[in-house]
Amino acid sequence: MQDPVHLHFADADTPYEDARYVIFGVPYDGTTSFRPGTRFGPRAIREFSFNFEAYDPAAGIELFDVPVTDLGDLMVSRLPEAVVDGVADFVRGIVRDGKVPVMFGGEHTVTVGAVRAVGPEVYVVCDAHLDLRDELDGTPYSHGCVTRRVLETVEDVVIIGARSGDREQFEIAAERTHLYTADVVRERGIATILGEVLDMIEGRRVYLSIDADAIDCCLTPGLGTPEPFGMTPLDLREVVRTLGPHTAGFDYVEVAPFDAGQTAAVAALLVRQFIVRHWIGRC
Amino acid sequence: MQDPVHLHFADADTPYEDARYVIFGVPYDGTTSFRPGTRFGPRAIREFSFNFEAYDPAAGIELFDVPVTDLGDLMVSRLPEAVVDGVADFVRGIVRDGKVPVMFGGEHTVTVGAVRAVGPEVYVVCDAHLDLRDELDGTPYSHGCVTRRVLETVEDVVIIGARSGDREQFEIAAERTHLYTADVVRERGIATILGEVLDMIEGRRVYLSIDADAIDCCLTPGLGTPEPFGMTPLDLREVVRTLGPHTAGFDYVEVAPFDAGQTAAVAALLVRQFIVRHWIGRC
Amino acid sequence: MQDPVHLHFADADTPYEDARYVIFGVPYDGTTSFRPGTRFGPRAIREFSFNFEAYDPAAGIELFDVPVTDLGDLMVSRLPEAVVDGVADFVRGIVRDGKVPVMFGGEHTVTVGAVRAVGPEVYVVCDAHLDLRDELDGTPYSHGCVTRRVLETVEDVVIIGARSGDREQFEIAAERTHLYTADVVRERGIATILGEVLDMIEGRRVYLSIDADAIDCCLTPGLGTPEPFGMTPLDLREVVRTLGPHTAGFDYVEVAPFDAGQTAAVAALLVRQFIVRHWIGRC
Amino acid sequence: MQDPVHLHFADADTPYEDARYVIFGVPYDGTTSFRPGTRFGPRAIREFSFNFEAYDPAAGIELFDVPVTDLGDLMVSRLPEAVVDGVADFVRGIVRDGKVPVMFGGEHTVTVGAVRAVGPEVYVVCDAHLDLRDELDGTPYSHGCVTRRVLETVEDVVIIGARSGDREQFEIAAERTHLYTADVVRERGIATILGEVLDMIEGRRVYLSIDADAIDCCLTPGLGTPEPFGMTPLDLREVVRTLGPHTAGFDYVEVAPFDAGQTAAVAALLVRQFIVRHWIGRC
Amino acid sequence: MQDPVHLHFADADTPYEDARYVIFGVPYDGTTSFRPGTRFGPRAIREFSFNFEAYDPAAGIELFDVPVTDLGDLMVSRLPEAVVDGVADFVRGIVRDGKVPVMFGGEHTVTVGAVRAVGPEVYVVCDAHLDLRDELDGTPYSHGCVTRRVLETVEDVVIIGARSGDREQFEIAAERTHLYTADVVRERGIATILGEVLDMIEGRRVYLSIDADAIDCCLTPGLGTPEPFGMTPLDLREVVRTLGPHTAGFDYVEVAPFDAGQTAAVAALLVRQFIVRHWIGRC
Amino acid sequence: MQDPVHLHFADADTPYEDARYVIFGVPYDGTTSFRPGTRFGPRAIREFSFNFEAYDPAAGIELFDVPVTDLGDLMVSRLPEAVVDGVADFVRGIVRDGKVPVMFGGEHTVTVGAVRAVGPEVYVVCDAHLDLRDELDGTPYSHGCVTRRVLETVEDVVIIGARSGDREQFEIAAERTHLYTADVVRERGIATILGEVLDMIEGRRVYLSIDADAIDCCLTPGLGTPEPFGMTPLDLREVVRTLGPHTAGFDYVEVAPFDAGQTAAVAALLVRQFIVRHWIGRC
Ligand SMILES: [Mn+2]
Ligand SMILES: [Mn+2]
Ligand SMILES: [Mn+2]
Ligand SMILES: [Mn+2]
Ligand SMILES: [Mn+2]
Ligand SMILES: [Mn+2]
Ligand SMILES: [Mn+2]
Ligand SMILES: [Mn+2]
Ligand SMILES: [Mn+2]
Ligand SMILES: [Mn+2]
Ligand SMILES: [Mn+2]
Ligand SMILES: [Mn+2]
Repeated sequence: MQDPVHLHFADADTPYEDARYVIFGVPYDGTTSFRPGTRFGPRAIREFSFNFEAYDPAAGIELFDVPVTDLGDLMVSRLPEAVVDGVADFVRGIVRDGKVPVMFGGEHTVTVGAVRAVGPEVYVVCDAHLDLRDELDGTPYSHGCVTRRVLETVEDVVIIGARSGDREQFEIAAERTHLYTADVVRERGIATILGEVLDMIEGRRVYLSIDADAIDCCLTPGLGTPEPFGMTPLDLREVVRTLGPHTAGFDYVEVAPFDAGQTAAVAALLVRQFIVRHWIGRC
Repeated sequence: MQDPVHLHFADADTPYEDARYVIFGVPYDGTTSFRPGTRFGPRAIREFSFNFEAYDPAAGIELFDVPVTDLGDLMVSRLPEAVVDGVADFVRGIVRDGKVPVMFGGEHTVTVGAVRAVGPEVYVVCDAHLDLRDELDGTPYSHGCVTRRVLETVEDVVIIGARSGDREQFEIAAERTHLYTADVVRERGIATILGEVLDMIEGRRVYLSIDADAIDCCLTPGLGTPEPFGMTPLDLREVVRTLGPHTAGFDYVEVAPFDAGQTAAVAALLVRQFIVRHWIGRC
Repeated sequence: MQDPVHLHFADADTPYEDARYVIFGVPYDGTTSFRPGTRFGPRAIREFSFNFEAYDPAAGIELFDVPVTDLGDLMVSRLPEAVVDGVADFVRGIVRDGKVPVMFGGEHTVTVGAVRAVGPEVYVVCDAHLDLRDELDGTPYSHGCVTRRVLETVEDVVIIGARSGDREQFEIAAERTHLYTADVVRERGIATILGEVLDMIEGRRVYLSIDADAIDCCLTPGLGTPEPFGMTPLDLREVVRTLGPHTAGFDYVEVAPFDAGQTAAVAALLVRQFIVRHWIGRC
Repeated sequence: MQDPVHLHFADADTPYEDARYVIFGVPYDGTTSFRPGTRFGPRAIREFSFNFEAYDPAAGIELFDVPVTDLGDLMVSRLPEAVVDGVADFVRGIVRDGKVPVMFGGEHTVTVGAVRAVGPEVYVVCDAHLDLRDELDGTPYSHGCVTRRVLETVEDVVIIGARSGDREQFEIAAERTHLYTADVVRERGIATILGEVLDMIEGRRVYLSIDADAIDCCLTPGLGTPEPFGMTPLDLREVVRTLGPHTAGFDYVEVAPFDAGQTAAVAALLVRQFIVRHWIGRC
Repeated sequence: MQDPVHLHFADADTPYEDARYVIFGVPYDGTTSFRPGTRFGPRAIREFSFNFEAYDPAAGIELFDVPVTDLGDLMVSRLPEAVVDGVADFVRGIVRDGKVPVMFGGEHTVTVGAVRAVGPEVYVVCDAHLDLRDELDGTPYSHGCVTRRVLETVEDVVIIGARSGDREQFEIAAERTHLYTADVVRERGIATILGEVLDMIEGRRVYLSIDADAIDCCLTPGLGTPEPFGMTPLDLREVVRTLGPHTAGFDYVEVAPFDAGQTAAVAALLVRQFIVRHWIGRC
Repeated sequence: MQDPVHLHFADADTPYEDARYVIFGVPYDGTTSFRPGTRFGPRAIREFSFNFEAYDPAAGIELFDVPVTDLGDLMVSRLPEAVVDGVADFVRGIVRDGKVPVMFGGEHTVTVGAVRAVGPEVYVVCDAHLDLRDELDGTPYSHGCVTRRVLETVEDVVIIGARSGDREQFEIAAERTHLYTADVVRERGIATILGEVLDMIEGRRVYLSIDADAIDCCLTPGLGTPEPFGMTPLDLREVVRTLGPHTAGFDYVEVAPFDAGQTAAVAALLVRQFIVRHWIGRC
């Protein structure tokens, strides 16, 4: 009897025990303010993972030679605080087992739980939004408060690609984070900026969070809160290639598959880039 | 200077003070379990209201002769309990001013707030789902708990068109509600059933809630939790025409405009039916 | 060299000279009031014509044995009066050549031109709308005035399936047309009604116009002005089968392909029904 | 660590060894003539399986009490003959293990492989199309030849709901199958017909194949070759309830999710109906 | 009682009397030649206005501190000449009251009316098309004739981003306008070109019209007549920032929301840019 | 009687005998691995051809002055080998008549047939994929084997824009083709690369194949197997302008119109560019 094709992320078929990378999704979009749909992000990223060849020509590696597993989706509640707690519990297990969590959102809120479990010293986020509100729509666990919550638990926060926030958030960002707006990325070039970020990290434990809306919504419009005038997919590829090997926890969030698939296609490829680059850079 | 066209429900342009019917939307879909999108329900119903002639030939009335206002949308929180509280506060004002609330969901959860404000003795709901869970996904204010919450505050509950629930909910429905499943509606006919319901009401204060998924999803698929084997739009028209004049509060919820507009078209027409029939039956 | 597949209505490949039926489209939707898109009707109907087998089992005929041609689309102006004139000129040529025009709309307005050219004594229209306004949005050649314009040129008008119009239009319909509303069709049955219509026609020259919105929008939602509570496709099939053989000109208008294709599928099948039944009933 | 949600058909989480029902998909649509997309059928049916409560109120059973497994998707080739062979091999394993195959198409062609493995004496198919061509588009393993291929291997063929085929196919159907067209189903009622079919079966081994286009495309338009004037979902429910307990192999094919989900919703519910009714009727 | 959320452009809630900027839409698309849908442009731009933070970090201003009103939509006719007249009348009122009109199309034709009312000396238009036909599809008031009509009433016309027109239009453009094609913008840079334009304006009264198709359709595909090889959203931002303060009337037309929202998102942001930059540059 | 508008590629109305360029489509997508839909490519490209002015301002030519014909679509089988044979037969007729074939896919597989008929010495392909597999999904005539099949029959193969393949394909490409990956195009510039290619061609007979996925899927997402990090439409325009005049056969394949039309719009314009540049460069 032939083996039927699996429904998980392509080539993520190592048994959990032997896996170094643990993929899982959190299809939660309960605090979304503009349009919902990021709950379908994990499904879309998995589907598009099958669009690509397993071989990464730049790295010279076949993805099926890297020990990756996909545990499916985690869904614990519709209340944001409970979701964050559930994610934290789940990721703690992964970290305890010495594995690297690779989480697919869902809305950005889920990152708060993963960061809590990974316990990084530096948090690097690519995002169109500052996400530095203290509260939004009645909860401190909103997609608009993610970086603010993380800020309370790490030593350094780096924000790349931001272009949206209220006056207060921009003030907080200026004082308490390393902010590289999208306009700054365009002017100075992503490579220069990543050099500065690497210097600042100085070998500390990093969590890397990609909010899909960091990329210009004219290039990848499948987003809950789309913003023009953003970064390019090539900028993001550079971020993942450069910072990936230094990262203890990774997520890709806020994909809302309203488009013809390009947003999920970019996500699936960048997730693979992260895994491949981290694997090459290991030891 | 010509007067620009308004963005509200068609012909709902009476000033609030003079209005008898007060339309408003609650674009909340935070606890949705299957697919989100009912937050776009109010917008879709308003858009389709402009598709129809103002004249109701069966009633012989022009809608612009009925005093209706549309206050726009109410959005207070992403936490279900706070949303219910906000709706209750808002509707209390409408009731206090002697007007009839006509609410567009959003998910069914918003009904709990409106019922609390209207304070009916009998609650009649058309719904594919029993909505009798005590809790779902971490909250008692979920779209799956609406009828259970209402059951705690009214004398009688009538459920028409249901065909989905777990074993416990069907037991509760059998013991504590007047349940007419969709199969029963098909077998006995909606007119017969409505006769029984009218007898049971006996002139008491009624709240009428239409969950759009009461209708078969093959006829109106623009729903968050679509169910086949349901009621027809004609059945619903009969419900609204028969019970409308006896109703102190009305809502139409769970329209998620994924389709070619038919679900919102039916909703807009039935909302008008309610208003027209209530207006004719006044005195 | 093999013959490439044509882009016209399936099996409509008889040369014009030898054809008895002349298909053409008028992709005009300039006066549409709710949502545009009927300009894509002809294209959609042609595409779906290839979905079906050529054989009509009820009639025992293969469509490729009937002499049909498809001349493509006619587009002359964006001004409704000029469009009507252009259609009238075009159809006059077809009629002069002793052929039967089979027109695909576009909006209903194009019918005014075709009727003018065919010169029927009786006009039968299936439509959700009375289309009896004298003027709409600044022109007497609007989709809302079609039946009114036709009324000025024929002896008898039969309206089947209507359920929308203002008070004045319903008064005109009562006085000057044979009106069978959708509710009446449901109550009395289409067969009974068609018997009455046949008696009334008494062998006179008939033009049959199908406005796709005659059918309930829950069954075929691909429409510019969708209306629930309408006729069924089976009702329409009965109309076409019964009246088709008596008809000198035919059109199918107002298909706006927003849906998954069902509206165009029904249209393509009913166009074939018309052609097949007319062909069988000839001589 | 909490258990993440699985990606399979809802509640189909029994280990293969203990399962009585074995779900798998064959996302093949290579011979599709009108529009492709049935390859997405298995995915859509699985997604919609999560839309429903596990409880079947008519049967009084919770689906999670029935031993079902879902093996994911099988994809072996793009050449129809190889696909048929692959399916046959795969299903032979399931049958040898004493389990009941429950296959999701993909196009109807996959049924030929499953029937070959199950080896029924009677083949019952609900389908808008006769599928009795000997060859189509260069292959005898086309979606238009399914029933013809099966006819070569079974004692009796029953076709329910057909309304499309060429003259030759209707002749073959008349001579060599038990044909109940959609018009006949409407006239005589599905219950009467199923009584006849049960009598004819006389306890022999049955394979039941549901081509989703048996249902009227105005009710479920998510199809590769949509046909109006068809059966209703309630008719299909009756077929599955009545014949399900007598069936050794089952499939649901030709769902192409272009619509708002209603076609997959009906499919998911009818698959459950089959499993539940077969389970109740076992021993 | 809480205040319900309004349905207008975000933060455009100053009373008309106190407003400096007057937003209104003209949902007209009657002369559209390729695909209709710009009638939904005003609705889409308003919806996406709620996607953005009120704060403009580059300008250091909160939009709610700028006196803006939104009057809703204006719809007067389906005949292009009457629409132009209606817009002219309406805008004359706004201008007479000393306010700045900010109009959302609808098709480009509406600009002719607004320009007539504003009476500028210089007309600057960003457009993929020359729009210099004298007549199209039977009317001189077509979307293909806009710049030709305006040319008859102003001193100077500047066209930026054009790449489509017939031979005659390119000859007229060369002789009678300042034409910067999209290729020229790419080669010389938008900043250089805007320097030349500012010099040419010399403080005269300017009307600025943005046809959304000036931007490359691969970046913003939600258009009635999409053209590749165009400008970027960043180019447009530069145009609005540079010329905005010198502008007496502004419009953004031809958004047809077929895409995932990116075209309306860019439009909403650029409308805000115009208002903010004009407000900062006032006095 | 006015002439109705044709359904073919815009301005491709020269009789076959007089035509120099022969357009035809092959709506085949039977071996597609990720998502089907390229069968709708020819239809979409034809539709979008009507979006553009006939005048090419860079070339100074009106398309209707170039002798082009459109023969419609060719569909011979669902088996890939038979499709390739059918295309080869059909193109042989065109070549024998001294005309230039301009083919619209359908999937890339159809190119194998056209190349076989044209018999070029050099094959230039723009493609995201190497297409160098010897076999895929059971057939050597798969969309993943196109360049491998062609490699067996020509002297030189040039691949531009590739970024996807397995390890073995990259090894074959390095040894047996002139490979310019998308990253190389970005680094060195398309003009430089085209200079090298022209030198290498040295006046030999060229076939130019454009796989639409050569372009970055964030710019044109209407693709069967979308890949980010690709070429731009401007790069492709340069390829067509530079190599077009040297080309004996041309195709544009793999357009799958899932998007808002931008992919088909780019295709239609580049097809015109090819024809116009080849016509100018003739003699
Ligand atoms: Mn974020
Ligand atoms: Mn963000
Ligand atoms: Mn409910
Ligand atoms: Mn419900
Ligand atoms: Mn009409
Ligand atoms: Mn109508
Ligand atoms: Mn079949
Ligand atoms: Mn079928
Ligand atoms: Mn323009
Ligand atoms: Mn333009
Ligand atoms: Mn290729
Ligand atoms: Mn490719």
